[in-house]
Amino acid sequence: MHSAEIGDLVQLVSMRDLKSFLLRIQPENRLETHNGFINHVDLVGHPFGSIVHSHLGTDFLLLTPSAAEITRTLKRRSQIIFPKDIGLILLKLSIESGQEVIEAGTGSGALTIALARAVGPSGLVHSYDSRADMQNVALNNLELVGLSTRVNLKTRDIKEGFDERDIPALFLDVPNPWDYLSQVHHALRGGGFFGTLLPTTNQVISLIAELKLHSFGMTEVVEVMLRNYKTVVARFRPSDRMVAHTGYLVFSRALHTEELQQDSNI
Amino acid sequence: MHSAEIGDLVQLVSMRDLKSFLLRIQPENRLETHNGFINHVDLVGHPFGSIVHSHLGTDFLLLTPSAAEITRTLKRRSQIIFPKDIGLILLKLSIESGQEVIEAGTGSGALTIALARAVGPSGLVHSYDSRADMQNVALNNLELVGLSTRVNLKTRDIKEGFDERDIPALFLDVPNPWDYLSQVHHALRGGGFFGTLLPTTNQVISLIAELKLHSFGMTEVVEVMLRNYKTVVARFRPSDRMVAHTGYLVFSRALHTEELQQDSNI
Amino acid sequence: MHSAEIGDLVQLVSMRDLKSFLLRIQPENRLETHNGFINHVDLVGHPFGSIVHSHLGTDFLLLTPSAAEITRTLKRRSQIIFPKDIGLILLKLSIESGQEVIEAGTGSGALTIALARAVGPSGLVHSYDSRADMQNVALNNLELVGLSTRVNLKTRDIKEGFDERDIPALFLDVPNPWDYLSQVHHALRGGGFFGTLLPTTNQVISLIAELKLHSFGMTEVVEVMLRNYKTVVARFRPSDRMVAHTGYLVFSRALHTEELQQDSNI
Amino acid sequence: MHSAEIGDLVQLVSMRDLKSFLLRIQPENRLETHNGFINHVDLVGHPFGSIVHSHLGTDFLLLTPSAAEITRTLKRRSQIIFPKDIGLILLKLSIESGQEVIEAGTGSGALTIALARAVGPSGLVHSYDSRADMQNVALNNLELVGLSTRVNLKTRDIKEGFDERDIPALFLDVPNPWDYLSQVHHALRGGGFFGTLLPTTNQVISLIAELKLHSFGMTEVVEVMLRNYKTVVARFRPSDRMVAHTGYLVFSRALHTEELQQDSNI
Repeated sequence: MHSAEIGDLVQLVSMRDLKSFLLRIQPENRLETHNGFINHVDLVGHPFGSIVHSHLGTDFLLLTPSAAEITRTLKRRSQIIFPKDIGLILLKLSIESGQEVIEAGTGSGALTIALARAVGPSGLVHSYDSRADMQNVALNNLELVGLSTRVNLKTRDIKEGFDERDIPALFLDVPNPWDYLSQVHHALRGGGFFGTLLPTTNQVISLIAELKLHSFGMTEVVEVMLRNYKTVVARFRPSDRMVAHTGYLVFSRALHTEELQQDSNI
Repeated sequence: MHSAEIGDLVQLVSMRDLKSFLLRIQPENRLETHNGFINHVDLVGHPFGSIVHSHLGTDFLLLTPSAAEITRTLKRRSQIIFPKDIGLILLKLSIESGQEVIEAGTGSGALTIALARAVGPSGLVHSYDSRADMQNVALNNLELVGLSTRVNLKTRDIKEGFDERDIPALFLDVPNPWDYLSQVHHALRGGGFFGTLLPTTNQVISLIAELKLHSFGMTEVVEVMLRNYKTVVARFRPSDRMVAHTGYLVFSRALHTEELQQDSNI
Repeated sequence: MHSAEIGDLVQLVSMRDLKSFLLRIQPENRLETHNGFINHVDLVGHPFGSIVHSHLGTDFLLLTPSAAEITRTLKRRSQIIFPKDIGLILLKLSIESGQEVIEAGTGSGALTIALARAVGPSGLVHSYDSRADMQNVALNNLELVGLSTRVNLKTRDIKEGFDERDIPALFLDVPNPWDYLSQVHHALRGGGFFGTLLPTTNQVISLIAELKLHSFGMTEVVEVMLRNYKTVVARFRPSDRMVAHTGYLVFSRALHTEELQQDSNI
Repeated sequence: MHSAEIGDLVQLVSMRDLKSFLLRIQPENRLETHNGFINHVDLVGHPFGSIVHSHLGTDFLLLTPSAAEITRTLKRRSQIIFPKDIGLILLKLSIESGQEVIEAGTGSGALTIALARAVGPSGLVHSYDSRADMQNVALNNLELVGLSTRVNLKTRDIKEGFDERDIPALFLDVPNPWDYLSQVHHALRGGGFFGTLLPTTNQVISLIAELKLHSFGMTEVVEVMLRNYKTVVARFRPSDRMVAHTGYLVFSRALHTEELQQDSNI
């Protein structure tokens, strides 16, 4: 039986209003909600997937949070990258167990967490941000989900470059990635994966113009649109509204081929 | 310097027509292309991200293949799951390093490979399919990418159930997933993640009707639409045509809460 | 110079908050807004496309309302059909100057107005609805935009059938169009255009199953998705959120060909 | 009974392969198809919506063509505007019976035909194009559908301006609309509707930058995405592929308000 224990990261979903709470079970703590409180210790021994009750008798569903749910409920100070984009980023950057990866900026840590999960306990995420306050938010989020040991936070302006070399993949979440392409190329190994997310077409145009000039190739620009459906059996249909845009995802590869710059194909 | 070695899985992209080749470097082998041949051994020592030449002098870009590229170039006998969907599946099922996961059917192994990458060297994918011929295609693909040791292929009709218990996540790629929900629930641990991909609305309607009857909850149905852009700086615009539909992704959680079935909220 | 006159239907847009007002200029009337009032007579003689001022000095842009704007600002008691869908409906039903067309129900009159505009002064819209209160809302809207003489409102349950025969086009905006296909076929001329808008996939499935049984063919189902962009020169990008779904548009033709029912092609 | 007569514009759809033919019934003519020929006179007297036979016995469905179908089957020398976009254009430009409208270029005449239908027999379309050969294609198309008398074709470079004044609406289908905004503003009446369709984001950015400088306002940029569904009752689902992009629609209003240019709101 898979049951909650002290130290577990759990999700509680109120059956009354479907409000969701993320917490790490600690002996002395108590979750306060509009539908009553729950002492953390009272969760211990309950099977995941079952119902627990607040002191007011409201039903709460006890779950382990999904990676997507963790992203959604993070404390944030900045726009975070959405699961619909994170899924494709991990795949396009080919992140795998045991590897190193660089990201900048750290932001609130949504992508940091996803990268830390993907590189596993033997991998390492180097996460740069010039703002210490943002990295504190990210650090708190990383500690909540138990992944801070997989992340090397560096409070640094990436204009100064990255410390690492021969890194297989690097993601920039900054408004002006074209300003750092030399630094990025320097940190990546040959053929290394570069990715970024840009909200505006102007930024994409600026970036793809610069990528060729900095020995990048195989550039792709894609947009992921996620449509939710209402799960009513007799009335199956899309939700009325959706997120129309988060950003354009740009992926490219670091090449060693100066002679290739004349070639318009890649 | 990150260079190609005997045994490496590499991608060669023809600079003439952008045609892409996936191969594992073996001492005796030779890649035949419309633009000339390349002896595998001649790749050894070349840095990734650089250009190599066929015997006819055509330029080929030497790369490590991305996870998305591997999916795209797999040998297949069946419709495969696309990277746009795989990315979200891994996130929604919360696949992580070291875990076990079940899938059925194996098909050509596209998702199998993605799951095997995500669980890492210490994880395990149990992959069921009733057709031995399909599993042979998948096995060849797994061996090509060097992941066969992470996958436990079982040639079996899943009507008979799964051998495993307390599994954190299970994905069905079959036309009638509603027929196997008891077996799925039996294999999953409490709160375990269930996912499936269904091409038609009729299938989704049939499935979401059955999920509640089998103690599943928190059901979500989503559709991922991927739009590619042409990367021409002076004419930045979407591609003319796109894949309009692969399928509806359905995600749900295995619950222990028979009493909840009356509750329409989850 | 194209200037406002008594009796004109005009749109005023507040330059302070972009709030939009639709009114017909009448000698005694006054428009009240949060940014001050404007006496209708003070608009007379002002060129369209120019600025007028409220008594508090706020700028308002004086325009003739577009057909899309009229739809957007209608008084409504029911979900209205959106311009994105209306545009395609008019084209697919081939509505043209001088023709007759049937619609049911009338609803708040958004499509009624669009049809009345399309058939012109020599055409006629027969609009059925079983609810007199809805038709009063529609009538007020039709009178505001000066199109009530082109519309023949009939307060009637369409189960009893339509009075007209040999009509070139008919649109149903009802939840159960499959229940009225005999009546629809009876009212349409041979090859006549039938259209409807349905929010759920279950409804579409029910309808397309019945269409063949009632001598309809050439059936098409489409969905129109409209994406708005922010018109900021330096940051050109889609709006953050969009209407993800209004409904599935179903179009079909009334055929005289009972023998065709065996043929699966149409 | 609505039956085919000499002079009618009709559509014939082969029941064997769903291939569609557009023709105007002329006494001496014969339609040649891969499934046999049909003499035009043999269509006379057949009810629309019924089946006729080729000399080889193949079934053909006899229909009046829809406006959308006419667009689809036009002879063309250039990229035409799609029905999904035409529908919204007519609505956003508020084209109505009896009015005048300007378009440039004429192209193959797809939008010309739609505008000519919308302005009705008492309206007029002024259509400019610098290429006489294009206008000949358009003229042939207009004559086939019987609308040439509603269109005033002018073979002229619009750099020289438009002859008309106080026109309620004008549509540009040219690659560089920003170069003609003075001419457009000069031809439009106050508050007049301007629209254009542009394939690339670079063009949209160039245009919206210039619109403000030329006393245009209320600018909107939208994109229409049309998704087709397969009409199989037991497998209702979207088509596999779709047109991902035709262009960005830009709509704006001609203003008389030089003082407004400082105001960033419109």
